[in-house]
Amino acid sequence: MLDQSPANRVNAILGRLGEALAGGDVEGAVDLFATDCYWRDLVAFTWNLKTLEGRDQVRAMLQSQLPAIRPRPFVQDSREAAAETDGITEGWFDFETADARGYGHIRIRDGRIWTLLTTMVELKGYEEPKGIRRPLGAEHGSSRNRRTWAEKRAAEARELGYVTQPYVVIIGGGQGGIALGARLRQLNVPTIIIEKNERPGDSWRKRYKSLCLHDPVWYDHLPYIPFPENWPVFTPKDKVGDWLEMYTKVMELNYWGSTACQSAEFDEATGEWRVTVRREGREVVLRPKQLVLATGMSGKPNVPKFPGQDIFRGEQQHSSQHPGPDAYAGRRVVVIGSNNSAHDICAALWEAGADVTMVQRSSTHIVRSDTLMDIGLGDLYSERALAAGMTTRKADLIFASLPYRIMHQFQIPLYDRMRERDKDFYDKLEAAGFMLDWGDDGSGLFMKYLRRGSGYYIDVGACDLVIDGSIKLKSGADVAHLTEDAVVLKDGTVLPADLVVYATGYGSMNGWAADLISPAVADKVGKCWGLGSDTTKDPGPWEGEQRNMWKPTRQEALWFHGGNLHQSRHYSQYLSLQLKARMEGLATPVYGLQDVHHRS
Amino acid sequence: MLDQSPANRVNAILGRLGEALAGGDVEGAVDLFATDCYWRDLVAFTWNLKTLEGRDQVRAMLQSQLPAIRPRPFVQDSREAAAETDGITEGWFDFETADARGYGHIRIRDGRIWTLLTTMVELKGYEEPKGIRRPLGAEHGSSRNRRTWAEKRAAEARELGYVTQPYVVIIGGGQGGIALGARLRQLNVPTIIIEKNERPGDSWRKRYKSLCLHDPVWYDHLPYIPFPENWPVFTPKDKVGDWLEMYTKVMELNYWGSTACQSAEFDEATGEWRVTVRREGREVVLRPKQLVLATGMSGKPNVPKFPGQDIFRGEQQHSSQHPGPDAYAGRRVVVIGSNNSAHDICAALWEAGADVTMVQRSSTHIVRSDTLMDIGLGDLYSERALAAGMTTRKADLIFASLPYRIMHQFQIPLYDRMRERDKDFYDKLEAAGFMLDWGDDGSGLFMKYLRRGSGYYIDVGACDLVIDGSIKLKSGADVAHLTEDAVVLKDGTVLPADLVVYATGYGSMNGWAADLISPAVADKVGKCWGLGSDTTKDPGPWEGEQRNMWKPTRQEALWFHGGNLHQSRHYSQYLSLQLKARMEGLATPVYGLQDVHHRS
Repeated sequence: MLDQSPANRVNAILGRLGEALAGGDVEGAVDLFATDCYWRDLVAFTWNLKTLEGRDQVRAMLQSQLPAIRPRPFVQDSREAAAETDGITEGWFDFETADARGYGHIRIRDGRIWTLLTTMVELKGYEEPKGIRRPLGAEHGSSRNRRTWAEKRAAEARELGYVTQPYVVIIGGGQGGIALGARLRQLNVPTIIIEKNERPGDSWRKRYKSLCLHDPVWYDHLPYIPFPENWPVFTPKDKVGDWLEMYTKVMELNYWGSTACQSAEFDEATGEWRVTVRREGREVVLRPKQLVLATGMSGKPNVPKFPGQDIFRGEQQHSSQHPGPDAYAGRRVVVIGSNNSAHDICAALWEAGADVTMVQRSSTHIVRSDTLMDIGLGDLYSERALAAGMTTRKADLIFASLPYRIMHQFQIPLYDRMRERDKDFYDKLEAAGFMLDWGDDGSGLFMKYLRRGSGYYIDVGACDLVIDGSIKLKSGADVAHLTEDAVVLKDGTVLPADLVVYATGYGSMNGWAADLISPAVADKVGKCWGLGSDTTKDPGPWEGEQRNMWKPTRQEALWFHGGNLHQSRHYSQYLSLQLKARMEGLATPVYGLQDVHHRS
Repeated sequence: MLDQSPANRVNAILGRLGEALAGGDVEGAVDLFATDCYWRDLVAFTWNLKTLEGRDQVRAMLQSQLPAIRPRPFVQDSREAAAETDGITEGWFDFETADARGYGHIRIRDGRIWTLLTTMVELKGYEEPKGIRRPLGAEHGSSRNRRTWAEKRAAEARELGYVTQPYVVIIGGGQGGIALGARLRQLNVPTIIIEKNERPGDSWRKRYKSLCLHDPVWYDHLPYIPFPENWPVFTPKDKVGDWLEMYTKVMELNYWGSTACQSAEFDEATGEWRVTVRREGREVVLRPKQLVLATGMSGKPNVPKFPGQDIFRGEQQHSSQHPGPDAYAGRRVVVIGSNNSAHDICAALWEAGADVTMVQRSSTHIVRSDTLMDIGLGDLYSERALAAGMTTRKADLIFASLPYRIMHQFQIPLYDRMRERDKDFYDKLEAAGFMLDWGDDGSGLFMKYLRRGSGYYIDVGACDLVIDGSIKLKSGADVAHLTEDAVVLKDGTVLPADLVVYATGYGSMNGWAADLISPAVADKVGKCWGLGSDTTKDPGPWEGEQRNMWKPTRQEALWFHGGNLHQSRHYSQYLSLQLKARMEGLATPVYGLQDVHHRS
């Protein structure tokens, strides 16, 4: 090629790829990929979330999917500049398939495709009513049968679930259920969100009073209505509660608060769920075609079993049940665990004047919030990123473009920098007896989050209390048993206690399926979350994507949705499109439905 | 000059202007202006809203203000391209004064300044906490005296007005009071909004049920949180009510609903208002330094006096009291008036099955909604404008940059196009007997709005009902008197009626001052709204700006705020900065305080 500008290089390879795909030339397409290539597809080609690793996997996928997907030529996005860094050329592109429009990202190395991201943006003929498609609102002209917006909205709220049936029921009305519900509303998919708390946001409001989001505002936007530019960096819990409540209202979601889901069963014959809920004191049976569990990626509380728990006379709580510190001034509290919840709870108890001991049973990964924001997120989610032209959408896609298989390689250098910057801090923590780790391979917080959803604390102050002894630390010693008034460790230490808090984490989300549907269905879908990285608490084999999240499962018409605000925002896009396509009866040939290797 | 690009031309003249102003060279600055020049200043130079017309007025202002304002060099905004059209070169610029940062727009004709707009953006040292200045939210570290966001917010809501005093009280919690309250909150000006209705948005919710905003979404954004891209073009009234309610909540406004203002008096000695309100059944006396009336630019209802009103046995309502059509199916209704409210009410009554007659006493300006959106607003406020890179901020400033003295010249050609496009429609209306006008000088709707706030209907369907006779029309005939069961016109027509609706408009906002404060203060400040254009219902002399709106009045510490959503958004910026500067004790030398020519 004569002109070797990044844009021309991207154009050339996209042109050849698009042509090969449009012409059904699988080998021609595969030839464009490097040997160690990655194609991450979010619904557009696979009707699944799938990372194809290496040419053989790419070939197999194309052989299976091309006839149904029928892609058209790929067109470089002229609004986003292609760029070259360290021998890698990057670019952005639009594409279409038979049924959808998509957007993608490409990395080229040595003239071949190293990473490819393809994402579904919208279904043709079912575009969201926004921008030039936004609704008129007013009905111009006159009619004696006119119903106003308020009347129609009230009728829908009154009738849905009783007179008419929703297509989707979402169990769980936190940020995950709300973000997905908002997208489904825009796609005109009748949906009810079931939430045991009274109001949207209550799952935040009811937590301990000093809680603020640990992720920063730039990372936390919901779809459609971003936080305003005066929003705090780390939103206080009650403020995020108010935002979720207003969002639910203005996005016109059918949100059933104070409603408990009692059971759900799938009727294979009719292809319908029978979901029994209790609302306003009455049992209501819903019959949706699709059921989404958005009950929190944390799953059900894990409470360890120790001898003597039955004779201990004080209070025992899982961290999720802890009401906050106010009642415990002057009391002796033992907190079992040393991750985020344990630190937050210990600090709040110390602030309230409790006598607090943290029992650290295994090592923990600690990063300081400021450092994490700067080094870990700053390039994509920060004022600095905004000033450099980064949008939330683009940041989400760049994040999504890094294949999970090699993501740790990008993460390790960041955490090396963090460790160096905060060396004094870590030295002091270790001097206080705290057991530190950086993940099995030194890849730090985000990989721990993706692999096991636990094992870390983002320090917003509690570490200083550990360092100076305000929070007493017992590390490396597991619990032996409880007595009537104390926790006894295996090294013989006796910790007198009025309250024991088990900050011991959560099980897999399919535990909810076991409770609500059946243990058989929970086993059929298997463990949720994690990548199969063969690291602590994330057993192999390698999965390539997070297990069961936002994609088809082994149980027909059952879906899992959740994660932090970033994931709730971004992945709700793909889940909502999968649900909409099914409602409209489009062909959705799922490629590479995951195998189940673990049941919990 | 060698390089005659628009940007260089703008640069050259801005450079010379900035230098002259910074150097106190009044004549040098004046020389840069054309003979028929206009300098519109929004607070930055005049601590007033002021349009200086011609060199003499520019000179006089500079002689008065330069010593205190101390402007620094003007810098062209490199992010906004300068442009030339029809011999006019336009550009944008940043500037600073001693106390503030500003933004401006310039039009150059024949090498001299034809129009100049200077607006205050922020006060130095009192910048809003947004973007890189946004609050942290979380308080990192630990403290035994920590108060959470929720605790602090609750304490403020509990104490403000009782334990502590607000600096500003805003009477009226519609969109005007809410938008201003939001800006004052960001500027850290303690403010209470007093609203007689229970909830924010109720002033919309309580109106007739088919009401939708007549202005389109692109024109209607509030500060800080724009409507999302899926928002309807014309928002239904209950939906805008919900939006205002959530906005008030998430912007953390101190909003006293169900609270009536009973009286207000200014104590010259202490420089404090004594505002008596009734809240939750108890009288509360507030002592703010500043009082804003945001009770609606429409002012108090005008109800004409006709003989026989006392003996009429049916119902009589001002349009603002009309509860909607539901109770009037099959009843005979006479609506006096032919502007927006009259048309909306007649159409809704017809839809509900009432027998409706509209009495048109004088001519009315009619434009079809679609045509108005396309020709009247489309270049600045539409999806088309957004696609062309127009932002709300820029559109507001372009709008503001057109001097009122010559604005009608820009408007007349637009309305000529509308008349031509919809010729058939207007012919049919006239054939039905409807009396049309286009404003005294053919300048149409927006000028009527600015001059008198009335005299038009944006057609969303009622005209077809007039044309086909569904709404009966009696035009050109004023009311003679009422009998026990009919309205009798001066031409002898007897219109039997169960209900008479007076869609007869509103008085000047200073009528509220007469009621709440005193007739003396109302007379002292004089008429609100209007330009002094010497056209119907807007008597001269020429004022140059809207009377008394968003700027200092003849009554110290009394301000008027209001208008449509566009004005509430844009002008709340300037009013909030004027209030903040006074709270901080900055020098605010007001130039050219308006004279009072009319009392109502």
